[in-house]
Amino acid sequence: MKPDEFRRVGHEVIDWIADYRERIETFPVLSPVAPGWVRDHLAPLPEQPEHGFDGLLHDLDTVVLPGTTHWQHPSFFAYFPSNASLPSVLGDLLSTGLGVQGMLWATSPAATELEQHLMAELAKAMALPDHFEGVIQDTASSAALVAVLTALHRHGDDWRNKGVRGDEVVYVSGQTHSSLAKATRIVGLGEDNLRSIEVDPDTLAMNADALAAQVARDRADGLRPILVCASIGTTSTGAVDPVEAIADLCAAEDLWLHVDAAWAGPAALLPEHRHLFAGVERADSFGANAHKWLLTAFDLSLYWTAHPDTLVQALTILPEYLRNDATESGAVVDFRDWQVPLGRRFRALKLWAVVRWYGLEGLRQHLRGHIALAEALEAKVEHSRDWLTAAPRSLALLTIRHRDGDQATRDALLRINASGEAYVTHTVVNGHFAIRVAIGSETTEARHVDALWNRLEA
Amino acid sequence: MKPDEFRRVGHEVIDWIADYRERIETFPVLSPVAPGWVRDHLAPLPEQPEHGFDGLLHDLDTVVLPGTTHWQHPSFFAYFPSNASLPSVLGDLLSTGLGVQGMLWATSPAATELEQHLMAELAKAMALPDHFEGVIQDTASSAALVAVLTALHRHGDDWRNKGVRGDEVVYVSGQTHSSLAKATRIVGLGEDNLRSIEVDPDTLAMNADALAAQVARDRADGLRPILVCASIGTTSTGAVDPVEAIADLCAAEDLWLHVDAAWAGPAALLPEHRHLFAGVERADSFGANAHKWLLTAFDLSLYWTAHPDTLVQALTILPEYLRNDATESGAVVDFRDWQVPLGRRFRALKLWAVVRWYGLEGLRQHLRGHIALAEALEAKVEHSRDWLTAAPRSLALLTIRHRDGDQATRDALLRINASGEAYVTHTVVNGHFAIRVAIGSETTEARHVDALWNRLEA
Repeated sequence: MKPDEFRRVGHEVIDWIADYRERIETFPVLSPVAPGWVRDHLAPLPEQPEHGFDGLLHDLDTVVLPGTTHWQHPSFFAYFPSNASLPSVLGDLLSTGLGVQGMLWATSPAATELEQHLMAELAKAMALPDHFEGVIQDTASSAALVAVLTALHRHGDDWRNKGVRGDEVVYVSGQTHSSLAKATRIVGLGEDNLRSIEVDPDTLAMNADALAAQVARDRADGLRPILVCASIGTTSTGAVDPVEAIADLCAAEDLWLHVDAAWAGPAALLPEHRHLFAGVERADSFGANAHKWLLTAFDLSLYWTAHPDTLVQALTILPEYLRNDATESGAVVDFRDWQVPLGRRFRALKLWAVVRWYGLEGLRQHLRGHIALAEALEAKVEHSRDWLTAAPRSLALLTIRHRDGDQATRDALLRINASGEAYVTHTVVNGHFAIRVAIGSETTEARHVDALWNRLEA
Repeated sequence: MKPDEFRRVGHEVIDWIADYRERIETFPVLSPVAPGWVRDHLAPLPEQPEHGFDGLLHDLDTVVLPGTTHWQHPSFFAYFPSNASLPSVLGDLLSTGLGVQGMLWATSPAATELEQHLMAELAKAMALPDHFEGVIQDTASSAALVAVLTALHRHGDDWRNKGVRGDEVVYVSGQTHSSLAKATRIVGLGEDNLRSIEVDPDTLAMNADALAAQVARDRADGLRPILVCASIGTTSTGAVDPVEAIADLCAAEDLWLHVDAAWAGPAALLPEHRHLFAGVERADSFGANAHKWLLTAFDLSLYWTAHPDTLVQALTILPEYLRNDATESGAVVDFRDWQVPLGRRFRALKLWAVVRWYGLEGLRQHLRGHIALAEALEAKVEHSRDWLTAAPRSLALLTIRHRDGDQATRDALLRINASGEAYVTHTVVNGHFAIRVAIGSETTEARHVDALWNRLEA
């Protein structure tokens, strides 16, 4: 494709996306297709070139869109909304258009330095401490894995060569994201070395005393505690673990403290919610996703660490073909050593585009708007004869259940999702099936939440 | 940003990229900036919105482009070129514009089923066996990690819960990509459990007899061999390991055979080069990057496995909030269980756009063109008084060294890269410093290779 063809077809593609976003509310949020339907409608790959996007755009309209669950729909309340705001789409387009690969500083200095700049500036805006050094990971799962690997290196006897001992223990709560269990498995400890600490039944926050007791038991058993993951905003209900108390324990016991704020992290931009982040400045690592609540297209996970040197030591390997003068000068950072994969995209551009388009103040308004919508919904639930909150509202996440029990809650969820008018997903809170209403799409307005509520009350 | 604003600014961004690609030859391939230069020229993040891309595009022109190493330049001969062809840029744009997250089949059926379709169709075009099931990984590093994890699960005693035993051994050659060493470290075995098998000094291919002897020695020592990685096209020189002989050993010893064809894999589209892939049909897993030589923007790594069930068992974890009817029906595939991260982009779209735009025949022409350019360069080297090949040419990769020794080779490399007219990187072959000329950019023509040769001969 020549640049001039790109110009012509590119304008068509931009218009297709603009049209899609304009008419997104005409689609059922959750795709209604049956398994296999999409695949059955796809043609074999062509031998000869098509030299145009007409066929592809036609197939998008007729095959892909019916099979699409519309994450950018304003009535997407499932999981956590993952905003691909339009400035972030264009920032990502610029990155792909440049087509650079920033594994080393030398392979594209701007990719590394813009990322460093953004991470430092965001840390300031989020009141994170000066000693945090940031890097972009793909997802919070990878960030958690990197945290565990760094902790293993720090606590190991030559872990890089000898591997795990098998006595290292990782601590989470029963509400922690499953990526920590996956990381514990991946690093070779096995889930037997993962301790799931009990939570307070009301707040669903980790019980710091139970954590301390478990660490003491494990030490008495000759095991080696290495890391605690505290969550600020769990996936299930948005619970906030007592980071201060956990940080005290981690300091006393020399444990790595990873704070997972994948969803709630951007709320650190709001001074009125910064108390949720008390203690974060004592973390060894801290993660927050820009691709959930910070308007940035998936994937872009913000990861800060207080120990970049330990991270680099844990992950660096230098084959001959990657040696270069800039690296050997020690004057640059090579982000390949801060992550699992070698190659890396220029992800910073899409976040830069978002922050510049909206401004930090625009981002704060966006967050506050969602929290206000969740508060309004909470007030309705409190006055409802049928529904009650299953857990305390956390920022813009509300978890509710029907007073008539699990079956009524489940029926309501199925009814809503089958209607195509909204999409919600569930969790289980203290044994009760509950609907999560996660408010966070850029285009969600009061009328969308009201329509959901009317369906719930129906 | 409203869709109409997106339409307007989007056209500007498309035009900026078209302009960039049109004038790409006016830039020095390797960025000449000093460490810190880019960062020093970046402004703090704005409090107020900019509401336009003028400022951002201006900064791209004045700060980012000077700090960019131009991977899409036709004289980029470093590492392996990583094509972000313009149809793939638009396919990726469509994916970001849709903004779906395909962790589960249910979270966007089309994302999963188009990927399954593409992987099956490409397997056919590459003459891979019917029993291979494919999935898109981000990079070959992640693919290697997934292969090692699956092997650990297959060979473990309840590896998911008990972790590694510490006696598992992974086999590579001294020429295997460093991602295997990184994976061995990540999974908790430590590099002491990685065996680097000797290679034939002429071909740089793994010595299968030495491999067999090492496996026997390790068994005699009570260790547990689990996986061999064979390369088809090593990073350093494009060497091809004897996959058939290694497959025989793996079958006899019950070892997982992972075949890494990250760069050379697309050559399986060419019947005249399919002999390089003999034995691949016996692999347990096989990886090839579309983001190197298959015109697809980074990142998109093709990964096929003969044992999808084992892979899913190794990596699956099902927290309550991800349960859904489609998954429980068993009728669908959830690709989150085929990879390390939970979330995933709709990467298949960019590859689909590439194959449809160029056609399979167009892709073959592209590959053949690069191989022909490398053959022509090889002929020149053979008749040169100053240069000789440091290793046999492999497809479109030629590794050369100066007859006057390492310093002369190194001086030539530095001279070329400082000129800005081309970018090459180095390796070491049998103790000799050597320049790798990796031909693979979509826009590379004979005149670019000739210009490089003239500089080498200067």
